[in-house]
Parts: sequence; C-alpha cells; structure tokens
Amino acid sequence: MITLTLPDGKKKEFASPVTGREVVAAVLPEAAKHAIAMDVDGQVRDLSTPLTVDSQVRILTTRDTQSLDILRHSTAHVLAQAVKTVYPDAKLALGTAIEDGFYYDFEIPPVDQELLTKLEEIMRQIIEQKLAISREEVAYDKAREMEQAEPFKIEVLDELESNQATVSFYRQGLFYDMCPGPHLPSTGMITAFKLLKSGAVYWRGNAKNPALQRIYGTAFFDEKTLRQYLKLREEREKRDHNRLGRQLGYFITVPEIGQGLPLLTPKGAKVKQLLQRFVEDEEEKRGYQFTMTPVMAKSDLYKISGHWDHYREGMFVFESFGEELALRPMTCPYQFMIYNSKRHSYRDLPVKFAETSLLFRNEASGEMHGMIRIRQFTLADAHIICRPDQLEEEFLAVLELIQYIMKTIGLTGIWYRFSKWDPANKENKYIDNPAAWEISQAILKRSLDKTGLEYTEAMDEAAFYGPKLDLQIRNVYGKEDTIFTVQFDFALPERFNMSYVDENNESKRPYIIHRSSIGCYERTIAYLIEQFAGKMPFWLSPEQVTVMTITNDVEGYAKDVYTRLKERGIRAKLDVRPDTINKKVRDAQTEYIPLMITVGQKEVDAHTVAMRTLDGKVKYGIPLDVFLDYVAKLNAERALTVDLTPLGS
Amino acid sequence: MITLTLPDGKKKEFASPVTGREVVAAVLPEAAKHAIAMDVDGQVRDLSTPLTVDSQVRILTTRDTQSLDILRHSTAHVLAQAVKTVYPDAKLALGTAIEDGFYYDFEIPPVDQELLTKLEEIMRQIIEQKLAISREEVAYDKAREMEQAEPFKIEVLDELESNQATVSFYRQGLFYDMCPGPHLPSTGMITAFKLLKSGAVYWRGNAKNPALQRIYGTAFFDEKTLRQYLKLREEREKRDHNRLGRQLGYFITVPEIGQGLPLLTPKGAKVKQLLQRFVEDEEEKRGYQFTMTPVMAKSDLYKISGHWDHYREGMFVFESFGEELALRPMTCPYQFMIYNSKRHSYRDLPVKFAETSLLFRNEASGEMHGMIRIRQFTLADAHIICRPDQLEEEFLAVLELIQYIMKTIGLTGIWYRFSKWDPANKENKYIDNPAAWEISQAILKRSLDKTGLEYTEAMDEAAFYGPKLDLQIRNVYGKEDTIFTVQFDFALPERFNMSYVDENNESKRPYIIHRSSIGCYERTIAYLIEQFAGKMPFWLSPEQVTVMTITNDVEGYAKDVYTRLKERGIRAKLDVRPDTINKKVRDAQTEYIPLMITVGQKEVDAHTVAMRTLDGKVKYGIPLDVFLDYVAKLNAERALTVDLTPLGS
Repeated sequence: MITLTLPDGKKKEFASPVTGREVVAAVLPEAAKHAIAMDVDGQVRDLSTPLTVDSQVRILTTRDTQSLDILRHSTAHVLAQAVKTVYPDAKLALGTAIEDGFYYDFEIPPVDQELLTKLEEIMRQIIEQKLAISREEVAYDKAREMEQAEPFKIEVLDELESNQATVSFYRQGLFYDMCPGPHLPSTGMITAFKLLKSGAVYWRGNAKNPALQRIYGTAFFDEKTLRQYLKLREEREKRDHNRLGRQLGYFITVPEIGQGLPLLTPKGAKVKQLLQRFVEDEEEKRGYQFTMTPVMAKSDLYKISGHWDHYREGMFVFESFGEELALRPMTCPYQFMIYNSKRHSYRDLPVKFAETSLLFRNEASGEMHGMIRIRQFTLADAHIICRPDQLEEEFLAVLELIQYIMKTIGLTGIWYRFSKWDPANKENKYIDNPAAWEISQAILKRSLDKTGLEYTEAMDEAAFYGPKLDLQIRNVYGKEDTIFTVQFDFALPERFNMSYVDENNESKRPYIIHRSSIGCYERTIAYLIEQFAGKMPFWLSPEQVTVMTITNDVEGYAKDVYTRLKERGIRAKLDVRPDTINKKVRDAQTEYIPLMITVGQKEVDAHTVAMRTLDGKVKYGIPLDVFLDYVAKLNAERALTVDLTPLGS
Repeated sequence: MITLTLPDGKKKEFASPVTGREVVAAVLPEAAKHAIAMDVDGQVRDLSTPLTVDSQVRILTTRDTQSLDILRHSTAHVLAQAVKTVYPDAKLALGTAIEDGFYYDFEIPPVDQELLTKLEEIMRQIIEQKLAISREEVAYDKAREMEQAEPFKIEVLDELESNQATVSFYRQGLFYDMCPGPHLPSTGMITAFKLLKSGAVYWRGNAKNPALQRIYGTAFFDEKTLRQYLKLREEREKRDHNRLGRQLGYFITVPEIGQGLPLLTPKGAKVKQLLQRFVEDEEEKRGYQFTMTPVMAKSDLYKISGHWDHYREGMFVFESFGEELALRPMTCPYQFMIYNSKRHSYRDLPVKFAETSLLFRNEASGEMHGMIRIRQFTLADAHIICRPDQLEEEFLAVLELIQYIMKTIGLTGIWYRFSKWDPANKENKYIDNPAAWEISQAILKRSLDKTGLEYTEAMDEAAFYGPKLDLQIRNVYGKEDTIFTVQFDFALPERFNMSYVDENNESKRPYIIHRSSIGCYERTIAYLIEQFAGKMPFWLSPEQVTVMTITNDVEGYAKDVYTRLKERGIRAKLDVRPDTINKKVRDAQTEYIPLMITVGQKEVDAHTVAMRTLDGKVKYGIPLDVFLDYVAKLNAERALTVDLTPLGS
C-alpha cells in the first residue's frame, strides 16, 4: 500500500502500483474526461505512469497552464505521424511545444499551403481514431535498432551515454517517436488545432548540416480559444515589423547576404539617421564626448576584458596575417583604452564617452528575427567613468535622459527591472566580491527609489561585473525582451587598470556606468513600427508631407509649396501625376504619410492649402505661410502627431 | 671583338670580354670617380660585369637617378655588415632601397638610438676602408651551404628552383649577402648617409612569423643634399598626421587592438561627424537616397560580384554556424540588391543610392600607416544607376559635387587622372568587351573635356569593369595616392542581372557610376591635418572658440558669452582657470583653437569681447551681439578661416 497526498492536503491509500488514471477514477471521477497528466512531487508525468511510493499528487486538467504544452507536444507527434503518412521516407528531426504553439522539423521536400491543408486533414483522421498514446522504456541498443532509419534520432542517441538505463518512446497506432514526454492519454483529446506556416531551417542551426522543413502549428483545448487566438494573431501580424517594415519599404533581406543582416532601404535609413542625430546631439548637450572606435581588435583585447574566456562563441573570429582578430560584441574596452591614453585627475571626472557603435553577435540562423534579433546592430552606447561619490547623480541623470528620449520618440509600454546577483551563484556567474555587490546594489536601489519609478526586482540577472537596471518591453506577439540596460561596473576598471588621481595625489579606481539611452537603433525602429502599426510619429516619418495637385494646371503652385517645405527641412513629396485626387490620397494613406496637402484652383487663388491627416481630419483654406510655419514648428518640436486644432476652425 | 654602341650613337670595338670599368677608362676617363654602374641594353649592371656580345651601353654616374637606388642598396649592405659586427649572431632577413632611402630587417634585440649611433660609427669605418664590392655567381647547393646559418635566406632559397643555374652573392671584406644587385664598385663611394629610425615588423608581414627589427636610413651622393633632405624631412614630420593627429588628440592606436585600427578620440570623432553630416545633407539635396546596409555577407554574394575569385585575399573571411561570411571591401553589391528588390521604369532613373559605408581591407601590418592606410574605413560611397543617355549628365553632376565639397573643406593640391584599360591586357585584368570599353571611355573623355578640367591619362589603370577618373593627391612625404574615384561600370549590371523597363516596355540594362564625393573620411581628415599643419578650417575645428577670463571676477560674464556661443551651435570652450591670460592664450594656441576671446573688466563694462586669431591678429571692443552674429555666420557659411577685417578697425 502507498499513501498519496492530494492538493487539498487529504491523504489516500492505494494498492501499489497505481496509475494516475486509477487515481483520477477514485478521487476525481467527474474530471476523468479533462484529466491530461499529473504532477507527482513537482514532476509532470503521464496519467499512465505507475506510482509505487508515497507522493504528493495533483491531477492536471485542461484548465492547468502546463496542460497546454502537453497538448501541443502531442499535436506535434500527430503532425509527425501525418507527415510520415504523406512521405513514408520523411526523416524526423525534433518537435517541441513553444510559446504560442508547437513545431516539428522534418527532412522532406519544401512545404506549401496545399500540403499543410492535406496534413491537417490527415491529422483530423488520426484524432478521430482516438489512438491511445503509450509510453515505453527501451534499452539503449534496442532504441538504436528502432531508430535505425532515422539519422537525426541516431545522432541524438550518439550523444547519450550508451550505458544509460533506458530510452523512452511514445507510441500511437503504428507511429512511434523517441521522446521524454509527457503526453496526452489519447489523440482523441486534441480538439482544436491549426497548422500555421512552414520554413526552411538547418539541423541544429548550422548551414553545414542538412536543410529541414519546420512546420509550425498551434492547439487549444477548445475551438473558441483557437479562433480568438487566430484572430489576435492576424491582428498582430498586421503590426509585425517583420512584415510591415518590409511592406512599407523600411528594410529588405537577401538570401545571398544572409539572415539577421537586414539592408535598410531609404525609408529605414532615414529614420535611423534621424534617431542617431537626435541622440548624438542630445547626449552632447548633456556632456557626453563622442568617440569612433574600430569594430575589430586582436584577441589580446578580449583576453583582458574577459570576453575571450566567457563569450568567444558569441563573436565572429578570424585570422589576418597570423593575427587572431574578432568583431566586437561591445564598445567598453575600446573606450576604456581611450580613457587610459591620458592621465585623469579627480577634477576631470566624470568622463562620459558615447559612441554610435556598430556591434556584432554570432547568432544561429533559427534565432534571428526581422530587425529585432540580428547579427549586426548599432547601439547608442556610452560609458560614464566616475568617482564613487558621483555614481548616484550620474545614474539619475541617465534615467532622466532615457525618459526624455523615450517620450520624444513616443515609445511606451516600457517597464523597469532591477537585476541583482545571486550570492549562491558567485562561483559561476559573478565576480566574487560580496562587499562591492552589496554597496553597488544599495546605491542603485536607493537611486531608483528616489525617482519614484515603479520597477520589479530580479534575482540572478545581473551582469557578471555588477547590478543593472533593465528596460523591458514586449513585442507585438507579447514576447518580453530587454531593450537596453544601465549597468554598474566595479570589476572592469580593475581588469583594465583604470585610475584617476584623487585630492591627495593618490591613484584610485573609478566606477563605471555602462548604459544606452535608446538601445540599438534597428530594434528601436522595429518596436516603433509595431507600436504605431506603421504610422510613424510625425518628426520620424521618412516622408512627412505629400503635396498633391487636384488639377494639372496648378502644378506650378504645388511645386512652389513643395520647394518651400524642402527649404524648411521638411521631408516632402510632390505628387503631380495625372491621376484623380482620390487615388493620390489613397496612395499617400497606404504609405502612411502623416500630412497630405491638396491644392486646386481655389488654393492657388487664395494662396492657401488644404490639409488632411491620416485620421481623416481635413482643414481647408490655411494661408500658405501659416501652414509652412506650423509644419516647421511641429518638426522642430519633434511632434509625434499632427494636430490640426491650433489652426482654428 | 665586340662592338658597343654609346649613348651618342658612336660605336666602339673592344676585345671580349670587357668590363664596364674598362669601358669607362677607355671612353669616359674623367668620370671614372663618379661611375656607379652601367645600363646594358636597358638592364642595369655592375661595372665589373664582363661584356661578351655587341650591346648598347650607357655609363651611370652619380648624376643618374637610378644610381641613387644602387647607392642606397649598397648602404643597406654596409648597415648589415655593421649589425653583424655588433651582433655576430644576427639573422639577416631582407634589405632594399625605398623611395626616400633604404631599410634592412634583422632578427636582433630591439634597437635604440644608442645602437643606431654606434652602427653609424661602424658603417663610417667600413666606408673608410674602401672595401671593393664584388659579385659572384654560386651553384644552388653551394648557396645553401653559404647561408646555412641564415634561416630567412634559406627560406628564400627554398622557394627557388633548386636546379636554377646560379645564385648571385655580393661580398665586401669578410661580409657577404645573397643579392641580385647591382651595387657600387666600392664601399668608399658612400659619402653621405644617415640611419633614421627603427621599428618592429614580422617576417613577411605575418604575426605568426618571427619579429624582426627594421632599420631605416637614407643616403645621398653629397652631404649638402643629405642635410637638405633631413631638414625637409623634419618639416614634413611636423605636419605628418600620424604624429600631429596623435599629438592634437584626433586619434590613438593601441597594441592590443592592432595596427591599422585607429581609435578616433573626441576631436577626431567630431571632425568625422561634421564631415559626414555635411556630405550626407549635401548629397540628399542633390537627389541621393541613403541606405544602411550590413558590413558582412555570405560568400554567395561575393561570388556573384566576382570578388570571391579576384579579391578574396583582401577580405576578412570567417565562419558562422556552417556559413562562410566575409566583411565587405565595397558597398556596390549591397546597393544593387536594394535596386533589384523593386521593378524600375525608365522614368524612375537615375536611382542614386548613397551610403556612409564602413569598408574593410585585409592589409599586412607593414602596409598600414596612421589614418591613411587602415584596415577599416568609412567611405562616402554611392552608385548612380542610370540609362545610357543619362551617363554624361550624371558624371558632370558628380564632378560638380566633388569640386563643391573639396572647396568647402579646403582640400587643395588634387589633380585628375583618367584611367583607361589596356586592350593588350584584356585577358587578365579586364572584362573583354572592346566595344563597351571604347564607348564608355569616349563618353568619359568627352564629358571631362567639357568641364575644362586639366587631367592626365593613364593606360592600364582602369577598374576591371570600366574606365575611371582618379582624384590624386600627395601626402606630406610627397607620396602620390588616389584619394577616390569615379568609375563607369558596364559589367556588374550584367552579373547582378539589373534592369529597367524602357518606353517600349522592354527590359534594358542600366549603366552604373560608382563614385565617392569626399573619399574615406579617416583619410580625408589625415590629409586635412597635413595640409593645414593641424590648424583645421574654422567650421571643421573640433573646438572653434575659447572664452578666457583675464581676471577671476569676470567669470560670470565669460560664462554668459560661452553659453550664448553654445546656444548658437558653436563648439566653444571656457577657460576660467586662475592662470595668467598669457598662459591661457598659449594653451589655446598649442591646441590650434582658431578663435580666442579674452574678457576683462573693460569688456564686462562695455558688453564687448576682444577677439584674437591664430595668426596673431587682435580686435578689441567688438559688441557681444555683433560678435555672436559674426561667429554664427562664419559657421553657417562653413568658413575656412576667421577673417577679422569685416568687423572694422
């Protein structure tokens, strides 16, 4: 007999062995239909698992969040079974549940929509057959025999210890797959699913390996939630910068150049230039000095910084005439070298070096995404080298700058996370200097509290050299991301032997704040596109104003308006095509140009313009000079939207 | 008997064999003291070479330019002999005459000034000994035996065919060196020489090879010319950007980062930013659209462009997750891909894509120099994609832009070179399409002639895909360099399958102009520093104005002047140190700040300033507002110098 403790604390005795299914029947018979799996002492198990010792047991039903992953993982197996039905020689790679659904990778011919529809049909049949899903434990050699036709599975087995006890398989009908599980009890429990898309990937993300087809899908426990999700997804996709950014002409990618290496086309490049100049000028006003340092260095530099030991696989490394060089993943050591090229007195601090810095990250192809996760990016980077007594003031000034910049570009939905070290992890992840950690975390926390900003705290998320403040944001799919950070650093000044001379003529170590003020420009543009659904803020719009002629004979006046806008630094466009004004307006709307100017004979006679905004508001008879002054003012003030109200009724 | 033809056409018979020295004695006895070598049928030979067949012979004396190289090469041998005297175990690498002198590389301990002085002393003794320099031809195996203690010479021998007839050696006293020659007849003919400097290099420029010490020197046929040269050299060195640029705080280099990878410190970065923004804005006004494309691509891209086959060793190549990637040496294929991402009508042309483009070149360490020859540089690059009928107009517009930019930044001393293909070389170096070459060269020449610009023509200097116009300049040492080019391209549009749709709805190939308008920014800054001897043009000065207090109690007024300058976008500096005004002025002069403002009680009372320029001119009592307006105007107009005359007397 064994004793099982249930979630309500009640204990119940069973004859050993007892399966989850038998427990459900005994304690929760009304939920039998919805029982998916069980949690045994914190581990999720199949309902068919025999229990033989006293345990805490909780039955997971369709209402538990963990159940969704199990459902999706099982749906991925059903997909694999369907693929094998169409392509009996298909080679199975790996399948898994992911945040919004699941995927499975196969070595099969390229996948089109027709195949996806056909696979869904076969999957529906497998579900209707209500096949029992069963687990079996198999000896290592037997496992190799069972998977002899599956080279990817054999590769996984090659990496296991051949003397390990057993390998688990899951079987449904004639189909089986090597898999740790857990899974649903039956394919019949899958009710609402959809295959979403497919794409080519490399086995293990390496282009030297075979190309695979990854099929994505999703599944829910009811049709209604699935339909809601698909609708939400459609709306999200409309805002997805990876689609909208291409459609509006912000960037392209090219197979011959590679993934994660977007080419900014004129519109994207214009927004990046506007942001860069704005940030550079604002930072210069606030006492930053700009540097322009090389994007590569000999490995010697990264050996000092510690990147060679801790981050080498994240860098692009190459050789030149016997030297080992690497593209940089960060700017700090370069600016530290500039600091070290001179002697510094305590009176000269803080030294604030900023750079519009090109950085690189060696990412596997599967990791890359639009302009958010890329292999080459441009960071508004800076390092504030200061005395300990300046740390708080400088940190507060950085926060003030960040808030000013976010407000000016209109990026919202950002929250703050205070990331601390974990003393328990000090051997692996952190510089082992508990006193310095405590002091710098205390300063950071005290400063944060002074601002009144709301923030969360995160243990074990600090940089290896100090605590940091992360700026968090969600992309259009809800995925959380750190857009940039402000980091305290008490360790690298030591490694780079940085110093200043204090009042008593003694050499002291400075503190360093690593910070960005807008993050990486490519990513910021991506978030702006998503947040504004492509309708860029007025001052950041690549094209701000279109001047359109209603009739051909007003072309001269239209050109004059256009020229005068250009003279005032407005990014204007002239549309004198022999088309109808309705077509011209529609085209300008499609391109999300925030301000449309129409001129006809009436405007010529009265020396006015008619203004129209993207939200459909129109104002007629604005005197040309009033209009020009107003637009120039909006631009100079970095207006996010065009408000026509100040122009009167 | 053989017949020798002399330069004046006279023929003279000699008993064979006859040496050059015997010929001199017979035909030019008065020049015997100055005879250095001889030209036999266009080949320069030692005077000791025995002549055995009828030839054209010209005796080279100290007055012939070729003789200087022979003198310097022989002086390099004398240096090697002196080094062997100090370090009998020194390993000899290679020595040669160069533009302004000679060098020899040795494996010896690092060299200091003391050693150079000692070597000069020993060299003088060797010269006084008037050792005869004799050539001998030695069998390959014998040569290996003679050089058995010299690993670098053995490496050179390893690369020769072991069955080649003989290897030549030159001997003076006990010293000998494997060398093709020719050389002076005697060490006694060296009269005026100087060792100049030394530095570490790698054997064959590869960091995996042993480090060597390169000793530089120079030699002339008389003391007076040597002294003149040394004086000129000293003056040039004062202007050398590689010295002055570091001294004035424009850039540094760091051994751990590497050669050819300068770090622009705040002053250098400011000038680069000013130039970039100026060029970007000017080009945008002229119809260029900016792109920002990645600095790396898969090898696939370079295979299309042809760089993979023709320029691979000039690129930095690396691997990432099984993909072969390379840093780009040029922007063209990236912008071509953007062009190809859309359909183009003949009405849309010309398309002019510009980019502030980071480019890379894999250079050996010995090749690199300051900010002129570097491994990473930023080019104001652009590609004009146009119809054939637009080629001339676009080319003329480019020339106009270049002249405007050169005038605005004040760079002079540039001349034009029209570089053509060589039909004889078409198999190796050029696209084999004679008709296209002839047409494009004719268009380029006709357009050039229209401008009235003076230019030289250079055969066999074209790009592989078309003729080009080179902008040539000399650095402070007189070395000629192409700072940038304008190239016609009829070949790459084919490789990239670029097209536009013409009036008849037929697909046509466009022409392309590859061009820069200012060259690479780092190099342009270097030439500006050299040309202005560090005194940057006013609008490009990293610091334009210093406001200095004469007494401490006027600090408030000085700060006000400073703040108002800043508000008008002037790069101002405030010097309120408790030092004398003379010291402050001296410091500002040392930093070449073009405009110095001094304020004392008189200025406070009258609300004026006193202005002082770098050339020592001073103007007192300028009303503050007049001064502010005037400085803002100078800056807005991109003034090169500060002229105080308009302010009255």
